[in-house]
Amino acid sequence: MVVSVAHLGPPGTYAEAAALAYVNWLNQRGQQGLLCPCPSIAQTLRAAAQGQADVAVVPVENSVEGSVTTTLDTLWQLDKLQIQQAHVLPISHALLSRAETLEEIKTVYSHPQALAQCQGWLERFLPSVQLVPMNATTEALKYLGEDKTAAAIASSRAAQLYHLPILVCPINDYPDNYTRFWVLSLQPSGGGSHTSLAFSVPANVPGALVKPLEVFASRGINLSRIESRPTKRSLGDYLFFTDLEADAREASVQSALKELTAYTETLKIFGSYSIVSIGKL
Amino acid sequence: MVVSVAHLGPPGTYAEAAALAYVNWLNQRGQQGLLCPCPSIAQTLRAAAQGQADVAVVPVENSVEGSVTTTLDTLWQLDKLQIQQAHVLPISHALLSRAETLEEIKTVYSHPQALAQCQGWLERFLPSVQLVPMNATTEALKYLGEDKTAAAIASSRAAQLYHLPILVCPINDYPDNYTRFWVLSLQPSGGGSHTSLAFSVPANVPGALVKPLEVFASRGINLSRIESRPTKRSLGDYLFFTDLEADAREASVQSALKELTAYTETLKIFGSYSIVSIGKL
Repeated sequence: MVVSVAHLGPPGTYAEAAALAYVNWLNQRGQQGLLCPCPSIAQTLRAAAQGQADVAVVPVENSVEGSVTTTLDTLWQLDKLQIQQAHVLPISHALLSRAETLEEIKTVYSHPQALAQCQGWLERFLPSVQLVPMNATTEALKYLGEDKTAAAIASSRAAQLYHLPILVCPINDYPDNYTRFWVLSLQPSGGGSHTSLAFSVPANVPGALVKPLEVFASRGINLSRIESRPTKRSLGDYLFFTDLEADAREASVQSALKELTAYTETLKIFGSYSIVSIGKL
Repeated sequence: MVVSVAHLGPPGTYAEAAALAYVNWLNQRGQQGLLCPCPSIAQTLRAAAQGQADVAVVPVENSVEGSVTTTLDTLWQLDKLQIQQAHVLPISHALLSRAETLEEIKTVYSHPQALAQCQGWLERFLPSVQLVPMNATTEALKYLGEDKTAAAIASSRAAQLYHLPILVCPINDYPDNYTRFWVLSLQPSGGGSHTSLAFSVPANVPGALVKPLEVFASRGINLSRIESRPTKRSLGDYLFFTDLEADAREASVQSALKELTAYTETLKIFGSYSIVSIGKL
């Protein structure tokens, strides 16, 4: 059976690199994978939720820029997908251009997250260029053509794929730059070291968030992350996305999740899974 | 004395509308304000931190899209500015175009936040157009020219300023769409109903975040918001931005803040201030 893997395209994006890492993981287990590039993260997730693809590989969080909010918001809405595994990918941004020197460059194209992650480098070495945001790092590459005044920020792999020279690499401000991706599908999750969930709290009163957190702290369960997102109902009304360092099948987590329902309005559990790291950490 | 007010430009952005609201507030108190448009949110904040402008007006949070992470990250880095007041601005997105019907439109330009806030409307009424992100909602307007296949998402005020027809308004997916702005300066904050602070926690152990939250909950102090941001040191290492519904000069808050230092690594207090609402809420 060939596993179809939806990801944000086109080829050369970091999401494609994460999808390829998952396909390698499948290959090592004697399975085949087929990459299915999608035009947006929301459409990537919907492809898996509606059965057009077997799994979706989407970015969740970057170590410099933080959460990928589209992923969290779409996951809460879809309400069906379960996390099968997490992949952590080192991010190394390259400056791609046909220019021979930095002085020739007038415009730099990239995804807003990539532009933000290289902000310091750009202010130092290209202080007067125009920064132009794109929907994907690779979308910028079409603007390069033969124009020597244009540059793009993308991966080294994108440079190879699109036959473009790398002028400088890496240019990210923080060398420890990693993005965490989730592999999601309609299948129940297989269990593992981490559990992800999200909840809304019934009322905005003192301690509304303390109670849910105490449920885990009192059992010695570590929360590796908490992220608030607006419910979109009104300003100041939030959902909380949380990652636990524990498997939902453990007795202590089972009892915590049971108690948690008393302090939450809506509770959604996205499954338990393991983290597969790629490259150095 | 004329108060210089830095904001994200050019004229016609929502940030300019918030800056204008602050200037009106000044006028009612017999003071004059001068708008100083800046090319980015980070540069807006730096202008005030370096004394090139008296105050900076920046967006903090939108009720649909969540935190404006550049504002939080820059504020943590600058470490000097104090919040003087908060303004809540209703956001109403209009589709600006010289097209006579929706069928003529092939491209829609806007800021990624505005595109995201109209995503449902765009998928329903303009499912096959190309969405092009811009650095500011108003930056898109130059692409409209006489091109009847182009449209932009911006405010009604931008339509007036740039003499562009409004094709549809409002087109935001959630009618309750508000953005909260902060007015910041080097002056000590004047006090008020809300206090904002940010902290990092010493170690990633069970309950590391529960302790700081309990400090406030045990005193009946409500947290109206908590937002995590990466420290940018490594994946899984966070800062927490928190808003309290209390004045830092109250005795209970003073004692809470004192106790808080025991559970935090770095603690930064951005001041106490009042919320000035603009329009309906």
